[in-house]
Amino acid sequence: MEFASDNAAGAAPEIMAAVAAANAGARASYGNDASMERVRALVRETFEAPEAAVYLVATGTAANALSLACHCPPWGVVYAHDGAHVEHDECGAPEFYIGGGKIARIAGADGKLAPAALRAAIEATPQGFVHGHQRGMVTLANVTEAGTVYGPSEVAALTAVARDHALPVHMDGARFANAVVATNASPAELTWKAGIDVLSFGGTKNGCLGVEAVVLFDPAKAWEFELRRKRGGHLFSKHRYLSAQMEAYLTDGLWLRLARAANDAAAALDEGIRKSREAELMYPRQANMVFATLPRATHRKLEAAGGHYYFWPGDPAPDGPDDERIGARFVCSWATTGEEVDAFLGALNGSA
Amino acid sequence: MEFASDNAAGAAPEIMAAVAAANAGARASYGNDASMERVRALVRETFEAPEAAVYLVATGTAANALSLACHCPPWGVVYAHDGAHVEHDECGAPEFYIGGGKIARIAGADGKLAPAALRAAIEATPQGFVHGHQRGMVTLANVTEAGTVYGPSEVAALTAVARDHALPVHMDGARFANAVVATNASPAELTWKAGIDVLSFGGTKNGCLGVEAVVLFDPAKAWEFELRRKRGGHLFSKHRYLSAQMEAYLTDGLWLRLARAANDAAAALDEGIRKSREAELMYPRQANMVFATLPRATHRKLEAAGGHYYFWPGDPAPDGPDDERIGARFVCSWATTGEEVDAFLGALNGSA
Amino acid sequence: MEFASDNAAGAAPEIMAAVAAANAGARASYGNDASMERVRALVRETFEAPEAAVYLVATGTAANALSLACHCPPWGVVYAHDGAHVEHDECGAPEFYIGGGKIARIAGADGKLAPAALRAAIEATPQGFVHGHQRGMVTLANVTEAGTVYGPSEVAALTAVARDHALPVHMDGARFANAVVATNASPAELTWKAGIDVLSFGGTKNGCLGVEAVVLFDPAKAWEFELRRKRGGHLFSKHRYLSAQMEAYLTDGLWLRLARAANDAAAALDEGIRKSREAELMYPRQANMVFATLPRATHRKLEAAGGHYYFWPGDPAPDGPDDERIGARFVCSWATTGEEVDAFLGALNGSA
Amino acid sequence: MEFASDNAAGAAPEIMAAVAAANAGARASYGNDASMERVRALVRETFEAPEAAVYLVATGTAANALSLACHCPPWGVVYAHDGAHVEHDECGAPEFYIGGGKIARIAGADGKLAPAALRAAIEATPQGFVHGHQRGMVTLANVTEAGTVYGPSEVAALTAVARDHALPVHMDGARFANAVVATNASPAELTWKAGIDVLSFGGTKNGCLGVEAVVLFDPAKAWEFELRRKRGGHLFSKHRYLSAQMEAYLTDGLWLRLARAANDAAAALDEGIRKSREAELMYPRQANMVFATLPRATHRKLEAAGGHYYFWPGDPAPDGPDDERIGARFVCSWATTGEEVDAFLGALNGSA
Repeated sequence: MEFASDNAAGAAPEIMAAVAAANAGARASYGNDASMERVRALVRETFEAPEAAVYLVATGTAANALSLACHCPPWGVVYAHDGAHVEHDECGAPEFYIGGGKIARIAGADGKLAPAALRAAIEATPQGFVHGHQRGMVTLANVTEAGTVYGPSEVAALTAVARDHALPVHMDGARFANAVVATNASPAELTWKAGIDVLSFGGTKNGCLGVEAVVLFDPAKAWEFELRRKRGGHLFSKHRYLSAQMEAYLTDGLWLRLARAANDAAAALDEGIRKSREAELMYPRQANMVFATLPRATHRKLEAAGGHYYFWPGDPAPDGPDDERIGARFVCSWATTGEEVDAFLGALNGSA
Repeated sequence: MEFASDNAAGAAPEIMAAVAAANAGARASYGNDASMERVRALVRETFEAPEAAVYLVATGTAANALSLACHCPPWGVVYAHDGAHVEHDECGAPEFYIGGGKIARIAGADGKLAPAALRAAIEATPQGFVHGHQRGMVTLANVTEAGTVYGPSEVAALTAVARDHALPVHMDGARFANAVVATNASPAELTWKAGIDVLSFGGTKNGCLGVEAVVLFDPAKAWEFELRRKRGGHLFSKHRYLSAQMEAYLTDGLWLRLARAANDAAAALDEGIRKSREAELMYPRQANMVFATLPRATHRKLEAAGGHYYFWPGDPAPDGPDDERIGARFVCSWATTGEEVDAFLGALNGSA
Repeated sequence: MEFASDNAAGAAPEIMAAVAAANAGARASYGNDASMERVRALVRETFEAPEAAVYLVATGTAANALSLACHCPPWGVVYAHDGAHVEHDECGAPEFYIGGGKIARIAGADGKLAPAALRAAIEATPQGFVHGHQRGMVTLANVTEAGTVYGPSEVAALTAVARDHALPVHMDGARFANAVVATNASPAELTWKAGIDVLSFGGTKNGCLGVEAVVLFDPAKAWEFELRRKRGGHLFSKHRYLSAQMEAYLTDGLWLRLARAANDAAAALDEGIRKSREAELMYPRQANMVFATLPRATHRKLEAAGGHYYFWPGDPAPDGPDDERIGARFVCSWATTGEEVDAFLGALNGSA
Repeated sequence: MEFASDNAAGAAPEIMAAVAAANAGARASYGNDASMERVRALVRETFEAPEAAVYLVATGTAANALSLACHCPPWGVVYAHDGAHVEHDECGAPEFYIGGGKIARIAGADGKLAPAALRAAIEATPQGFVHGHQRGMVTLANVTEAGTVYGPSEVAALTAVARDHALPVHMDGARFANAVVATNASPAELTWKAGIDVLSFGGTKNGCLGVEAVVLFDPAKAWEFELRRKRGGHLFSKHRYLSAQMEAYLTDGLWLRLARAANDAAAALDEGIRKSREAELMYPRQANMVFATLPRATHRKLEAAGGHYYFWPGDPAPDGPDDERIGARFVCSWATTGEEVDAFLGALNGSA
């Protein structure tokens, strides 16, 4: 009963097969081979963006930090949700790659930025005031850290605020596939058509071994990105194994099939939890994550039954009353089975 | 006839099989699983270093830059050979990770640092002079960029100079396996027993998909390394695929078998070239690389025959006389076959 | 009627005379002259800190940023008050010098950090969590940005929290003299005896031309400070002019006399404002700054009368109703005269 | 007999008087006062550059590092003479401000870059090679570190090479006044008319207390410069004292009178040395510095007579034969008197 993270799952068989198939023979290194050309074409086709610059890295932190560094000066503010991954979970990679910078934390319900709050945060950074940080850029995650999803019009409302202040916008799409499935929007509608300038397009959490594409819808920063990637140590010599993953991922809709499986499993979990007398949902379930509070005693029961997941938003004190409600995050992946969900719900509803 | 680089080869079957086998089931992410424990034990056993801290990253540039950053302050000088990879081929990754720093380029025959030259370079950095960079650390590559190899006593002679000035020493072992095979020294003899503090221990070029271990023989910097790795974006969530490579690599001597194959192929190439009337060796062949000058006309002939390799130390002018001698680098990998070598020598010796 | 800032005033005559006197003859540069030795002795005597390392720079931002960089790793969090100068008024100098870092903003009444809030903020940074920033250090300003003052026991209560988490503590003492006068505490009691590790000891705002001392009560970081100062471009060749200022400043209690004059002027202003029907104080007046809200119409009246000051915490909208209350900051300096205060109060109480 | 450095001298009386005069009354801080407007106008007039952006800082290292950081990306190479101040005497300030970078050291006789060597160095950085540093910018010092001077056509020949590669050019003019006097060229002819993009225009060494102007002939980088200056901690609150120095410096040709005095003193020293049987000149004397080798015994004699100067290019071993020739640098300042020169020459020619 694995609900700790979608990165606890392995790779989908199609992805692993593609990696194995990519092994034969000699190949030009550093992405200068035909497989990267195919990846570029596939990404451009998927996003209806024939001019986009496309690069591969192996971690989400690299994708995010490099994307931000290309669009935010060292003295810039990155406007982000209060709970953003770039703020809490990257050990300062954005600040490191940006060469300074500051992340402005913006509160917002259900893990989402609201346009008015974004506007207020931007305008709280004085314009032309040499003593302070300067307005830099906006980043938003889709799926958010709270498992919620922005639809195209919500993205567009945020980018419109950014555009009013001439700021570029990055989307952290570590779970972008899950957002596409959840919204039924096209990749283009969720990104450049809604005003996104650069996307971290995740593969790792959704059935790859470790690959993320960075999609620069405006290729003006392409060469700068390449230099930053190299000097960050993120240019792979045997790049073929990154290309192979992304190529298989985008072939025949695999990426969406995998995300749909994860979302469906989470939907089943969500439904079971809502029926349960034990748990209370913290945020609306929209993609592949469910957040709920449960009594401490229930957590003990689930743990004893082999349930694996993280507390949310952090670990509780080790001791406390049995009826204390403690938050938890349950993440489903492409590999989560109906049996796993059922077993978990059984444990949730069963006696200790 | 692929001699461009050992990173143009794929992964050895045993490595790919291990990656595929690592795919099953859920696993704790970020290296917190049993496979990384096994890797740690294997590296420590291989190096007879039970206290060493061991980490995995996916690129050699990451391994080098993180190793240097842990041992050199932002105002420090890194003493390196004039032709070092960290100087020429990492787009400033060392300076980026160090947060400044300066690489002092030291000339030396056959790609190797000489102790006297190292001492002179260190002493050219004034001690306690606040206006200048400070003495930082030493880095040396084994195998060197010229394909030559340091034996244990040569390494020890260099680290003794560093020790005289209280400087730590890093070894860039992107091709460490080839050096071990070439010297018949043990991994410990070539590293910590000879005074090395930290090693970039390469797997990628020698039959892995993409994995390098960083071995900190003194674990005092272990936590700092972990933080630098994370904020560099080099901590893999699905770390199991790095662990699997390194585990297979170090199991049953695979890493040495692969390196021996590469070195043997290079020896055959070297012998053939020396017999040829066409080519002249630039450096003694000691591991898996051969450097030779050939007439421009011969290069054309080889290219026409399908030979693939880099010019050395850089590309020649596009035009020139047929008999102009132009340098080239020929790299053999674990996958280079005797047939490939023979075919190449045939083309070399054949008529145009 | 100049109340914009204490840096709008010139230098005290004694300071200017010392600078002029320092001009004669040749002198060793970079602080290697007898005047810096006298400064060192005077600072150590003033602070009863015979081991302290003492350095001079010319700006408060340099003093703060260098102090923080010596005590906080690039991945560290600097815990600071929500309104801190290091957060709002240094254009990212702390992050630039630290090489990353993050400033955690802690709310607190009257511009002051409260121990419980500090503890909560520190503990909100998970310990040993490689994915996040790490606990770095604490900084507090005395006088605060709201013009309030910490007494020795308040400082000690904050440093005790830091000590519980093994974090060093910096005091931004751009207006340290004003705090000493306000509290009647000794410099030692307000700093190292209360647990401060490093102090930015301001001279510029209190009657100097431009000089700040950095006092490292533990000299372990002295050499690192010197290197950071130099590579920041803050080591003055004709250092004598910095030394001369600080020497005169600390001679015969000049620094305290100047601060007392400023604090007294602010006390008179404060008293007048409290008596006025127009203004309402925002924070208790404790040193040389008064913060009050006034109706928009009153601001117009004061401006027309030649009043010069900043709005607080920021500029209001250009238009609005006459009775809208708008905050303002009034800063007195060593040079503020009773006549100036009286004239201002007259304008405040007079008719438009 | 002070010949250690021109920064060992005090300030010229006119400069000190201007600083004292600037002390009266309240003033807007951070350069937002009329005196900075006058400085801007004077610099623009002096350089016949009505569009130039002009800023003041207090140290030459700040002026250089900020100038470079505005024109060189973090992955760029700064092409400089092998003996450049930015390489040897700024503790890595350029790399710190650039955020990485690499200084390419180019050998050249008499402290000067030669166009062909510059071209070769630039072309040695491969174009469009993502694995290496990129071509960044050129910096040259006038007066050079060897005391020699570039005339307008020499500057133009170097900037033409830079322009061929689309690289900007910085001039380190810590002793720019001495170069103007030496060449009889106009400030414009020596800078923007000869292709210089940005100039560090020194005042400190030539009779100021501590002020350097940065002149951006193309103001496109003006705002970036302001931000970098602030976050480097180099924006002075009581900026009036910087302005006052520069205003006096540029009024009625004071800067050239001071430099002429220094150059004339050096000419007299040079002539005396050339007549002496003891000393041998190392470089042609062109401005205010003389470099010569002398027997060790002569150095002892001069030291005993009260001569103060630096060995060049570094300190000799403490012991050695009396007739060993050891290099020395003799710097004259605006304050060097004919008596001082005569006394020194007397000691040089006198018996031990």
